[in-house]
Amino acid sequence: MATYSRNGGVSNQQQMHDDQQINGTIKPPTPINAEDEWTILERVFRVLADEGYLGPATHQKPVVSFEYPDDLKKLIHFPMDEQTPSSADTIEGIIRNVLHYSVRTGHNHFHNQLFAGVDPYGLTGSWLTEALNTSQYTFEVGPTFTLIEDAVIDKCLRLFEFGDGDGILCPGGSMSNMYAMVAARYRTVPDVKRTGVVNLPEPLVVFTSEDAHYSITKAVHWLGIGLNNLVKVKSDRQGCMIPEELERAIQSVLASGRKPFFVNATAGTTVLGAFDDFNRIADVCQRYGIWLHIDACLGGTAILSRRQKHLLAGANRAQSLAWNPHKTLGAPLQCSIFLIKERGLLHECNAAKADYLFQQDKFYDISYDTGDKSVQCGRKVDAFKFWLMYKARGSLGLEALVDNAFECAESLQDQLRSRTGFRLVLEEIQYTNVSFWYVPTWLRVDEPAQETADWWQRLYSVTADIKERMVKRGTVLVGYVPLLHKGIGNFFRMVVTCHPRPSPETMRYVIDEIERVGEELPQERESFSNQNSSTK
Amino acid sequence: MATYSRNGGVSNQQQMHDDQQINGTIKPPTPINAEDEWTILERVFRVLADEGYLGPATHQKPVVSFEYPDDLKKLIHFPMDEQTPSSADTIEGIIRNVLHYSVRTGHNHFHNQLFAGVDPYGLTGSWLTEALNTSQYTFEVGPTFTLIEDAVIDKCLRLFEFGDGDGILCPGGSMSNMYAMVAARYRTVPDVKRTGVVNLPEPLVVFTSEDAHYSITKAVHWLGIGLNNLVKVKSDRQGCMIPEELERAIQSVLASGRKPFFVNATAGTTVLGAFDDFNRIADVCQRYGIWLHIDACLGGTAILSRRQKHLLAGANRAQSLAWNPHKTLGAPLQCSIFLIKERGLLHECNAAKADYLFQQDKFYDISYDTGDKSVQCGRKVDAFKFWLMYKARGSLGLEALVDNAFECAESLQDQLRSRTGFRLVLEEIQYTNVSFWYVPTWLRVDEPAQETADWWQRLYSVTADIKERMVKRGTVLVGYVPLLHKGIGNFFRMVVTCHPRPSPETMRYVIDEIERVGEELPQERESFSNQNSSTK
Repeated sequence: MATYSRNGGVSNQQQMHDDQQINGTIKPPTPINAEDEWTILERVFRVLADEGYLGPATHQKPVVSFEYPDDLKKLIHFPMDEQTPSSADTIEGIIRNVLHYSVRTGHNHFHNQLFAGVDPYGLTGSWLTEALNTSQYTFEVGPTFTLIEDAVIDKCLRLFEFGDGDGILCPGGSMSNMYAMVAARYRTVPDVKRTGVVNLPEPLVVFTSEDAHYSITKAVHWLGIGLNNLVKVKSDRQGCMIPEELERAIQSVLASGRKPFFVNATAGTTVLGAFDDFNRIADVCQRYGIWLHIDACLGGTAILSRRQKHLLAGANRAQSLAWNPHKTLGAPLQCSIFLIKERGLLHECNAAKADYLFQQDKFYDISYDTGDKSVQCGRKVDAFKFWLMYKARGSLGLEALVDNAFECAESLQDQLRSRTGFRLVLEEIQYTNVSFWYVPTWLRVDEPAQETADWWQRLYSVTADIKERMVKRGTVLVGYVPLLHKGIGNFFRMVVTCHPRPSPETMRYVIDEIERVGEELPQERESFSNQNSSTK
Repeated sequence: MATYSRNGGVSNQQQMHDDQQINGTIKPPTPINAEDEWTILERVFRVLADEGYLGPATHQKPVVSFEYPDDLKKLIHFPMDEQTPSSADTIEGIIRNVLHYSVRTGHNHFHNQLFAGVDPYGLTGSWLTEALNTSQYTFEVGPTFTLIEDAVIDKCLRLFEFGDGDGILCPGGSMSNMYAMVAARYRTVPDVKRTGVVNLPEPLVVFTSEDAHYSITKAVHWLGIGLNNLVKVKSDRQGCMIPEELERAIQSVLASGRKPFFVNATAGTTVLGAFDDFNRIADVCQRYGIWLHIDACLGGTAILSRRQKHLLAGANRAQSLAWNPHKTLGAPLQCSIFLIKERGLLHECNAAKADYLFQQDKFYDISYDTGDKSVQCGRKVDAFKFWLMYKARGSLGLEALVDNAFECAESLQDQLRSRTGFRLVLEEIQYTNVSFWYVPTWLRVDEPAQETADWWQRLYSVTADIKERMVKRGTVLVGYVPLLHKGIGNFFRMVVTCHPRPSPETMRYVIDEIERVGEELPQERESFSNQNSSTK
């Protein structure tokens, strides 16, 4: 038998001991009274409120109380080795402990991912659906939620000008992108459901930009298409796919006897927040009869703002589109909407007609049993979160949130421009992603020629060092990323989200903190500037 | 432009009107004060408590207040056409209205699916993770939840005797089954990630039983294997895959020049709750070097009971296994655990090495960044729900819940045996699924010979009629299903779950109600027995 070591699991010896106890000496517990056990919900509500999770963000707690994995294992008892029920006080203690060492994504100074704090109405929606615990597959067990998902899809079809299309809520954007690829494959080779992709006369080929999300790579693997049949099209300095390069790539694939069938364009790339030129890409796709999908998981939120929706110009020419209100907009994870223009295709493509769930002799209109469109069987009710946010805020309320996020991103950019030592990766932000470096005083040089390859390596490493120190101080969480295909190492990528409500002041705090930490880096660092001066 | 009619969307004319308003006359709203908007969480807590969602199940409310889709659209304003923010009272009104027309899956008399009420500790866990809103991919943004997922996987590996394996939490069992198939394919054809399945020398073939879940069919389609390469092996009367038939099928596939690579066996089939003979199936798989996966999404819960875990004998010989604590055990949807025996394979198979998320120069041990094992990028924290349930109840507390569910299923079976007019589909239940018919007095015949094909059709139709009437009365929700491949039409399939806590009395209520409703079916029904008598 194995010994589980890494995760604090018990050794073989202890396991045998436990088994003996279970099989022998300990009697089954008196079950907790069913009435009593529900009191835990009041407790968790109070604890979350006490700890500031159910109100506007404050600065009073650290973003994270960081501990290394091995230390954290000493602070929380992770192994599941309890035999008898615990008291409510014990459970509350566990909950408080977990909260203490978790990351506050709803903190003013959390800017580490494409998501951050939750919208309170979204959280309300998710608490309600968790308590109601049903599945989004038949009208029978989710009458309200079926019509709510329909309403969300209809609204999104209108927002993105997708006509009389269809859609589904998915467990994340990677799944949405897979839905698109599966639908496109089915439309391209109608027999593929029966035959698979094996022995197709021409291998199918997918195109995406080198700045696009890695889920396209994962989808190509899962769906049996193969990474050999994925073309990563060159993007420009801003991170936008170059339409001419796309066309060239398509022609080259055609010449090799393979079949281009799917182009993924991006609205808001993960790192730079770039928007591809959808009109020009749609022209290319139209010319060659290729399905155009838009991964707008990040950037789709721009559709809610009259000032920003121009970013999505031409996106309505795509055959499908994915948008995650759980990113910028602050719907709780997961809230991912997949839209498709051809009504009926999702169902035709994915249906397996399970008799036990989708009985044909029901007494209501079974076109409301939408579950067979899905590759999942049980499916969480994710639509309600966004629906309630919309009902509560209205189009203008949501727009105000989005506009504020953009304004804060612009403010951040302006502040970075005017502060010594900070340097932007791009001249202009395209979305709310802001990418930059901080060059500490000791690393600054007098002229560009002194910015040698070695200098840049130092800067990349300083970026990671600053992040490490901020995490350990618990002051700010902001991501750093390299863009290796562009020959760029680590830089800070800060994404401004709608929640918790950002302001120019919260932006300034991050800059101040990066500067403070950068300047406090150990003195040994000074060796660089000394060394550098001496080699001049 | 399209007119959205089906879902209560607005007409083209109204849409234009809205746009004009947005573009012209209405000013942006004063945003809701960030402090105020959080008060909605206290309200939803109180409303859920008032309505009985945060306590033990009662009989006081109907299981559902059923309305046909078109009527429901008149009772709730589904379209998302709000422009300005709503008051907290308005939002609370919307919430109360949605609750009123939703199905109470936590009601004592909800037995319609493989899941029902939630475990309060599970719900506590989900409320907490919703409020903390993070993603399960890096230690950085989920230090506690990373170690908690590890603990859940380790515990499950021990429960199922899966040695030093690995695992991941998935958005549902269909996804778990796909993970298994992707891993098996990669192990069988290591180059498949690069080449895809196109042009493989031999098409890959999947085997499952005709009683198995339809997710296998969907996976075969999605993964590009093709339904032509899916063999549905015959099962016996109980719904168990016949090992000899499996072996014959494998031989026949081999003879056709194709490559068997994946056998899906089931622990607890969806309809009959059948457990395949894992030892005999493992023998066959071993003989031919085929990956054995066990879909224990439903039946895996038996592992928690010393009395019932024999049902899973031999399951530890599989290469992978899927279990959904969100079914029988009452973890809130979704809580799906996928286990795999070969440590490292999940990562090797699925990794895409995204630089922006899985930076290699982090300051902690990056083996704790487990997200690249996943086909998803952002991934909900589902492990915490089950972890907290275990911490709160202990192994003995969970076992008591499982044993109680089995005892109630046995009680239901006993009661059905002793009541006139009820008839079991199988002699003996295998899990907590109980399948039966009710033959109303007017449909009863004197001898088996009178049970003609027409008589059976009437019984099938009576089954659906009883269900319809119970839904409309709001008294009981219990599923009916046909098993067409066994030549059987509609019967009731009642699944006994751990929550809300069932009892022999709640079982009896269902029988009483079915009998009551069956006997009250319209008098026209009597024509059958008259007609039948006259043709004698």
